[in-house]
Amino acid sequence: MRTELCERLGIEYPIFAFTPSEKVAAAVSRAGGLGVLGAVRFNDASELDETLTWMDENTDGKPYGVDIVMPMKIPTEGKSVDLKAMIPEDHISFVEQTLLKLGVPPLPEGEGREGVLGWLHSTARSHVDVALNHRPVLIANALGTPPNDVIEQAHEHGVLVAALAGAAKHAASHVANGVDIIVSQGYEAGGHTGEIASMVLTPEIVDAVDVPVLAAGGIGCGRQVAASLALGAQGVWTGSLWLTVEEYDLGQSDAIQRALLKASSADTVRSRVYTGKPARLLKNKWTNAWEEEGAPAPLPMPLQNLLVSDAHNRMSNADDPDVVAMPAGQIIGRTNEVKPVAQVMAELISEYEETVARLEKIRG
Amino acid sequence: MRTELCERLGIEYPIFAFTPSEKVAAAVSRAGGLGVLGAVRFNDASELDETLTWMDENTDGKPYGVDIVMPMKIPTEGKSVDLKAMIPEDHISFVEQTLLKLGVPPLPEGEGREGVLGWLHSTARSHVDVALNHRPVLIANALGTPPNDVIEQAHEHGVLVAALAGAAKHAASHVANGVDIIVSQGYEAGGHTGEIASMVLTPEIVDAVDVPVLAAGGIGCGRQVAASLALGAQGVWTGSLWLTVEEYDLGQSDAIQRALLKASSADTVRSRVYTGKPARLLKNKWTNAWEEEGAPAPLPMPLQNLLVSDAHNRMSNADDPDVVAMPAGQIIGRTNEVKPVAQVMAELISEYEETVARLEKIRG
Repeated sequence: MRTELCERLGIEYPIFAFTPSEKVAAAVSRAGGLGVLGAVRFNDASELDETLTWMDENTDGKPYGVDIVMPMKIPTEGKSVDLKAMIPEDHISFVEQTLLKLGVPPLPEGEGREGVLGWLHSTARSHVDVALNHRPVLIANALGTPPNDVIEQAHEHGVLVAALAGAAKHAASHVANGVDIIVSQGYEAGGHTGEIASMVLTPEIVDAVDVPVLAAGGIGCGRQVAASLALGAQGVWTGSLWLTVEEYDLGQSDAIQRALLKASSADTVRSRVYTGKPARLLKNKWTNAWEEEGAPAPLPMPLQNLLVSDAHNRMSNADDPDVVAMPAGQIIGRTNEVKPVAQVMAELISEYEETVARLEKIRG
Repeated sequence: MRTELCERLGIEYPIFAFTPSEKVAAAVSRAGGLGVLGAVRFNDASELDETLTWMDENTDGKPYGVDIVMPMKIPTEGKSVDLKAMIPEDHISFVEQTLLKLGVPPLPEGEGREGVLGWLHSTARSHVDVALNHRPVLIANALGTPPNDVIEQAHEHGVLVAALAGAAKHAASHVANGVDIIVSQGYEAGGHTGEIASMVLTPEIVDAVDVPVLAAGGIGCGRQVAASLALGAQGVWTGSLWLTVEEYDLGQSDAIQRALLKASSADTVRSRVYTGKPARLLKNKWTNAWEEEGAPAPLPMPLQNLLVSDAHNRMSNADDPDVVAMPAGQIIGRTNEVKPVAQVMAELISEYEETVARLEKIRG
């Protein structure tokens, strides 16, 4: 399944794997896809630096990418402490009461952490600076077009820039601003997502832009890879598929792992409770609590994530798979056992090949 | 693109076209697909009888289908007048006030009609009785498994039974109850629909049942037909695509036609305001009014449709494309001009063939 984009990026299969785990990203790259490391979890740029050094040394010289979370417009921001002052007391109290009601204990003394700062513009910019000292072939931005100078900076290093889009007009605007690859993020996708489903969105974006498009949302088997290429994508962007692989080792709580393995495709919800922007998450007692009468509306990004970050840590520390905060797409219904990355890749490729052979037969 | 199901039904292409217009249904059948006439609009079974006689005579002897709306369980029902007594005054008042606010005039004297009775079990049953006196090859039920004796009745006439499903477990239950074909209705589809998008739902249903599956939701071009077959479907079930064809002649108001032609894929919403069950509709001032603070929750089926049926007539009679009540899927963004059925069919087929040729080339 070599598309033009494979040639351009030097990869064997147009399977892009977004993951916060460098072990998973490296394993995908070694297996011929493109592992894309999510940088948002690195509050400290030097940690990202070390991690990318590890990637450089553990990908058999094969290409990889880095994913950042950077708004095009530079928002007002201060230090973590200033932002925290903007969070209403009612919201803090709602979170506390909800955790109490759901039986989530406080963190052990001294284990509270500050929120994820990767949502901040300055942090995301430090991720780009650090990444470009390594050898990524792609920088992807989860929030659309990055600022112009970031695109120029990437291009000066020969690195392509991808941006997620949930609507054809956004995709066209990204391309007009210099983005090289569009990730068409369908409704069914995990994390930040819009309302148009992949079946409709992918060809709309393909028709609206003259750059390669990757289909994202709902892709977890070879039939879905073939369907995405049929829709005109030059590759697939996958995420949820890699949350339950053997190599995933971010100290994810056992409760989250169990929740992911048992979830069906009906067990997700699109909600603003994780970051302040609509994102698809596992649906459970925590997300349901925010939909009950009397619950406050989630705060805008980046306040919401600061509001709930301690709650996320507390839930991860507890042991209840029905009370976790975890982005996941509808495809999570297909990941019911832990497998090594190489096996997942091999299954995607062989089912893709069977599918195209079947289509050829139907065509007659 | 002949699949096994084509052989079984005696059709050339596995393109199923659900439409309330017999002219459109007949034209699709003549062009080698399967036109499926929606029966729900026929309050009087003798009208359906006449219409199917017309279909028998105007399909060049080619097969066609009939679509009914019948719950498996026989609900409590009375005559139209009894049901109307169950509608709360507040709801009636909200509808009246909303129409006033949106500038929708009352109907001319004497033009009020009773609501659509096709939602009633007894009416749907009369549709089946009438249909089986003609020569349909398929009876499809929009509400899942029809009652056992209806399935038996169809089978005795050599007619296959299809049922819509929005979840794999519902599909499995339909098949266990004797249904022959599953229509996998994705989130992006027009009319009654669930939350799982086509990309995820179609292969889930294909894996869950051992009967042919038709992919529905988001299909309006040949790439989407190819993608659906890649996902494992034996054909596609299309609906919105046929609302703007030249042959459509149900006296649909010009405002609805203009609304359909100008709508983008973002201009639909999944709402209970049309029938009481979640259905995807054009999003406009009417659907927005039901989402405002203070708006009542829609009533259960069949009460909601009775509540709003006069409102539907009034909106159709007015001339504002931003105030219409019209089921449509996200694919409506692709229907921007009026074309004859034969042209739509030819375009679907040729783009499908180009797509499979492109996939073969990528496969190398």
